[in-house]
Amino acid sequence: MVSFESDYTTGAHPEILKRLSETNLECLPGYGTDRYCESAGEKIRLACGCPDADVEFLLGGTQTNAITIDAMLRDYEGVIAAETGHISTHEAGAIEHAGRKVLTLEGSSGKVLPKVLQDYLDTFYADDNHEHMVFPGMVYISHPTEYGTLYSKQELEELAEICHSNDMVLYMDGARLAYGLMSRQTDVTLEDIARCCDAFYIGGTKCGALCGEALVFCGSRRPAHFMNFKKKRGALLAKGRVTGVQFDTLFTDDLYYRIGSHAIDAAEQMKDIFRRHGYEFYLDSPTNQQFIILNDEQLQTLRETTAFSFWEKLPDGRTVVRFATSWSTTEADLKALEEVL
Amino acid sequence: MVSFESDYTTGAHPEILKRLSETNLECLPGYGTDRYCESAGEKIRLACGCPDADVEFLLGGTQTNAITIDAMLRDYEGVIAAETGHISTHEAGAIEHAGRKVLTLEGSSGKVLPKVLQDYLDTFYADDNHEHMVFPGMVYISHPTEYGTLYSKQELEELAEICHSNDMVLYMDGARLAYGLMSRQTDVTLEDIARCCDAFYIGGTKCGALCGEALVFCGSRRPAHFMNFKKKRGALLAKGRVTGVQFDTLFTDDLYYRIGSHAIDAAEQMKDIFRRHGYEFYLDSPTNQQFIILNDEQLQTLRETTAFSFWEKLPDGRTVVRFATSWSTTEADLKALEEVL
Amino acid sequence: MVSFESDYTTGAHPEILKRLSETNLECLPGYGTDRYCESAGEKIRLACGCPDADVEFLLGGTQTNAITIDAMLRDYEGVIAAETGHISTHEAGAIEHAGRKVLTLEGSSGKVLPKVLQDYLDTFYADDNHEHMVFPGMVYISHPTEYGTLYSKQELEELAEICHSNDMVLYMDGARLAYGLMSRQTDVTLEDIARCCDAFYIGGTKCGALCGEALVFCGSRRPAHFMNFKKKRGALLAKGRVTGVQFDTLFTDDLYYRIGSHAIDAAEQMKDIFRRHGYEFYLDSPTNQQFIILNDEQLQTLRETTAFSFWEKLPDGRTVVRFATSWSTTEADLKALEEVL
Amino acid sequence: MVSFESDYTTGAHPEILKRLSETNLECLPGYGTDRYCESAGEKIRLACGCPDADVEFLLGGTQTNAITIDAMLRDYEGVIAAETGHISTHEAGAIEHAGRKVLTLEGSSGKVLPKVLQDYLDTFYADDNHEHMVFPGMVYISHPTEYGTLYSKQELEELAEICHSNDMVLYMDGARLAYGLMSRQTDVTLEDIARCCDAFYIGGTKCGALCGEALVFCGSRRPAHFMNFKKKRGALLAKGRVTGVQFDTLFTDDLYYRIGSHAIDAAEQMKDIFRRHGYEFYLDSPTNQQFIILNDEQLQTLRETTAFSFWEKLPDGRTVVRFATSWSTTEADLKALEEVL
Repeated sequence: MVSFESDYTTGAHPEILKRLSETNLECLPGYGTDRYCESAGEKIRLACGCPDADVEFLLGGTQTNAITIDAMLRDYEGVIAAETGHISTHEAGAIEHAGRKVLTLEGSSGKVLPKVLQDYLDTFYADDNHEHMVFPGMVYISHPTEYGTLYSKQELEELAEICHSNDMVLYMDGARLAYGLMSRQTDVTLEDIARCCDAFYIGGTKCGALCGEALVFCGSRRPAHFMNFKKKRGALLAKGRVTGVQFDTLFTDDLYYRIGSHAIDAAEQMKDIFRRHGYEFYLDSPTNQQFIILNDEQLQTLRETTAFSFWEKLPDGRTVVRFATSWSTTEADLKALEEVL
Repeated sequence: MVSFESDYTTGAHPEILKRLSETNLECLPGYGTDRYCESAGEKIRLACGCPDADVEFLLGGTQTNAITIDAMLRDYEGVIAAETGHISTHEAGAIEHAGRKVLTLEGSSGKVLPKVLQDYLDTFYADDNHEHMVFPGMVYISHPTEYGTLYSKQELEELAEICHSNDMVLYMDGARLAYGLMSRQTDVTLEDIARCCDAFYIGGTKCGALCGEALVFCGSRRPAHFMNFKKKRGALLAKGRVTGVQFDTLFTDDLYYRIGSHAIDAAEQMKDIFRRHGYEFYLDSPTNQQFIILNDEQLQTLRETTAFSFWEKLPDGRTVVRFATSWSTTEADLKALEEVL
Repeated sequence: MVSFESDYTTGAHPEILKRLSETNLECLPGYGTDRYCESAGEKIRLACGCPDADVEFLLGGTQTNAITIDAMLRDYEGVIAAETGHISTHEAGAIEHAGRKVLTLEGSSGKVLPKVLQDYLDTFYADDNHEHMVFPGMVYISHPTEYGTLYSKQELEELAEICHSNDMVLYMDGARLAYGLMSRQTDVTLEDIARCCDAFYIGGTKCGALCGEALVFCGSRRPAHFMNFKKKRGALLAKGRVTGVQFDTLFTDDLYYRIGSHAIDAAEQMKDIFRRHGYEFYLDSPTNQQFIILNDEQLQTLRETTAFSFWEKLPDGRTVVRFATSWSTTEADLKALEEVL
Repeated sequence: MVSFESDYTTGAHPEILKRLSETNLECLPGYGTDRYCESAGEKIRLACGCPDADVEFLLGGTQTNAITIDAMLRDYEGVIAAETGHISTHEAGAIEHAGRKVLTLEGSSGKVLPKVLQDYLDTFYADDNHEHMVFPGMVYISHPTEYGTLYSKQELEELAEICHSNDMVLYMDGARLAYGLMSRQTDVTLEDIARCCDAFYIGGTKCGALCGEALVFCGSRRPAHFMNFKKKRGALLAKGRVTGVQFDTLFTDDLYYRIGSHAIDAAEQMKDIFRRHGYEFYLDSPTNQQFIILNDEQLQTLRETTAFSFWEKLPDGRTVVRFATSWSTTEADLKALEEVL
């Protein structure tokens, strides 16, 4: 059965596995102090155009979100996110587990719009009782969002401006950043992100790594003793090389971008296939996740030959499903999809 | 200046102060093991018609809500509440501080409606991803709500039925319970509450006590070693007598009900005054809190002579304000209000 | 039965009850913003000789300790305390509940000695692995200690010097501060405490109040938005007047010191009685708690007529018990004790 | 430079890397639901002789300890450990971060002795105040301990008996379990461990894996919805296959035991070398970690050619250092050591 279920169903890009093997017998210090972590950090700083950024490695998006939010918020603050944001719904309460409230705003195709944010802040500070409420201290955005959509450079700049005028930080969840950066419909570069955000992470797990995310602190509120912070939360790997070697490889010879490009090319072909067969798109996604609306019959038929993800039920009874491409999507996969449609 | 600002702006009902004085020199054991705590618990059990209830004393509504929710939820569960629920907005994130997520539903005049609850549960359990989400483990309701409204007996029974069919508990915040019980438009008694809810608290602070709330566990999921639980959260009073004597007094000679009745009588007179002077009510509240809509001129004028609370701004620019009565509201207060209108 | 069980077995000093009654009908704003909280704070600042101190009111020692430690420590820090410190043993894990580790040092009659502290710090910072350990960020001392003993001014100054040279704060638990200040064997004043400590609390519950502690921030690391901090932890009283009026009274006409003096006088008489009857003291306590060693026969006999507290079992089978005096100890109580010995 | 610094300084055993490569293109479901996790779990159940055990995969010892302790303790309980236990000292307060107190006992070469445990429990339950204290709910042991020592089967059985008679669970940290199982001086098998402990983990990171630990629940207090529990704590890998494939390989063809044996053989040779050269052992370790006492001159000389770990300073000025072997220790390494001694 051909699978478009997600971008994490296959293992790691072969160049990563190769590099893990080549370095396997090297004797390296633990806990992220090895030369590969160092080199990966340096390459990421260069790619971000932010020579003084702090680059940290973690394992998994929920862990990275929970730790970053916990590290950057003050006690009286919570984090603003779209209602559909990953932290709002699909992290089993990890943010609240760290004692932080998620303050949800109505999203627009998964995005927090600057105007909606500004209205929220105006209402909050106008409320006489706001000392009894959770202060907004951070805006969380995902790019691409959970719906595959992207912020424009102007939107990013406006969000950053609102955040920094209101003593807040801007944090970007880049679980699928490779696909955002290589989308054919984006004007946002890694340097733009580093300039606008106070922190963001470059997703590895969903972009061709075995595991691992690279967290970049490039603005204000950088945590002290972050190694201790991670250890205290069970997120410090003894063999830090595992993430170091992977991200060093991802940022060598543009591998991260090549992985993104490959999946975007496949996604564009896939869109074309769906379009030609008359399928309806739930929204216009410029990245590797495509959301298609199926009626019950289509759903049943497709399920027999193809793996994809349930997304949500529409009021009219039809179903939104997701098809995702990745570094491992092949021409054969796309041909197989074409044939069953 | 005459004040209708809140029901906690004056001290304690005189009978309570008197009783604190009378018992002051008695030598009593600490931490809630004294005979007044015991006697108060017994009287409350009787009033609830629930002879095996566990009655515990705490200090303040936010403390009681946070501790009860933390004690009753399992690790993978969160608490459902109306968007306007006190725990959703005005507790500075105390519930999340305990690591628990508040799952908000659209409310109806501050109430969680059975139908809305059932829809939420249906959607949740139909979602294939729900193991990655926070499970609904409790429904939080306030009675009276933050808008002064009340649940009918039928609504309570329906909520209880839905909760118990879905492995959830029903918890009632009774910060202002005296006013709910003595409302002229209610069919809900303390016994009904004890029958439908797994836990609820009988508010003292806002119903004539100096401080203190009586928490009643009368259903499933009763916490073990609750004294230790309170101590660990800084909520165990050394001089437990302070709450014991107060609640023993409140449940002697119907004082709790007399306090409720007095405030309801005053509220009904106040409603009549506003009605006669043509003021618009934001909603129909059958309890001691009345919500009035004022235009800017009215707001300015009234503020000069009368204390009340800002509630919210309407889209049309007018303002909703709250007038509250209490055990200490006098005929003179009402006459003064009549005069300034 | 005559009771020396503790200093919190009777109610409040009559002047406090009187003042609560006198102010009962005043209409005051909530949450500690009333004029009595303000006035009490001002009087405490004056008594401490620290005009810019922040004075906050809380309810109970465990709550105050847990909140202060949580508020002042950085994420990577824990709190140093004597093994017998209240936070180390008798707070049901409240400090750990806030995610903070208690780092215990061997005590000396309940005290943390400067030399022991310095040795600990030397060992800690010499350890190559200390980034994987909890950093010492605060020293917690109680004065009087759990054994009734007191720090000398020189010891306090040395502890403060060590703390401030090692990026730590010094915090004093003053649950029984009145008795420490009025001991006949102390050279430490409230002003010395405010000068040496970064924070401390003036105990109310065990020094004649119904309930309440006054927390004083007078050094570095003062928390922002502390009202929100308290609310989030369920420690913000709606009727803040309850603590305001009490502490305003305690710091009017030297009531706090008079209460301390009265109990110290009684304790000195009690010591004399025990001494004259040949009883052995467990240690030399200069405050209101006296620790006596009893054999089984004495224990049995005394228990029939007198209430006191079990402290610990000695290796030789005898028992250490505690006798405490308070504002309410009378001549008759002492005479009764004399008679049964 | 030859390195005996630790057992996690090289990468993964080649068979593991090979297997990761071979399975890389297989399309597998996420979050630990893949067939390799399933198969690894089955093989571990078989090896433990515990067909109904729950096997869960996590990443790193601190994470596993913190999560297991949090999952198994009740709110009023803490965990007993030796003062030198990993959770007591070198986990940056991760256990306390989860709100759990570590109750330390004096250890004996890193071990909790049954008699010391029983004394602690006797004292605890004899204390009238124990409701104000943290209840002992679990005993944490490491096997091998932080000093390389091992429990005998009889000790394990006695600890289990004491735990189960006192409503406690027994939990074993097996970060280096392979070396314990293959020690030449042990009578403890994996089946004994599964029979005596309620939970334990089979260490991967320090026993030849890239990363990962296999947690086994085989007694009482098994947590419900553990996937959600892990997710909430940022410990759920999207590509669960990473741990599944590794542990499936480790428990195929006895690889886990072969890794243990190899390191034990190397350690025995190393002991022999040190012994022959007249070096003093700090204690008698039967596993892969050897603790040698060096004077300053020896320390300086050895450091120039050999990597090892500082352990502690002795009162007489000499230094305890640790030499560890692993799957990747070679004959050449040992020869090099021999030459420099």
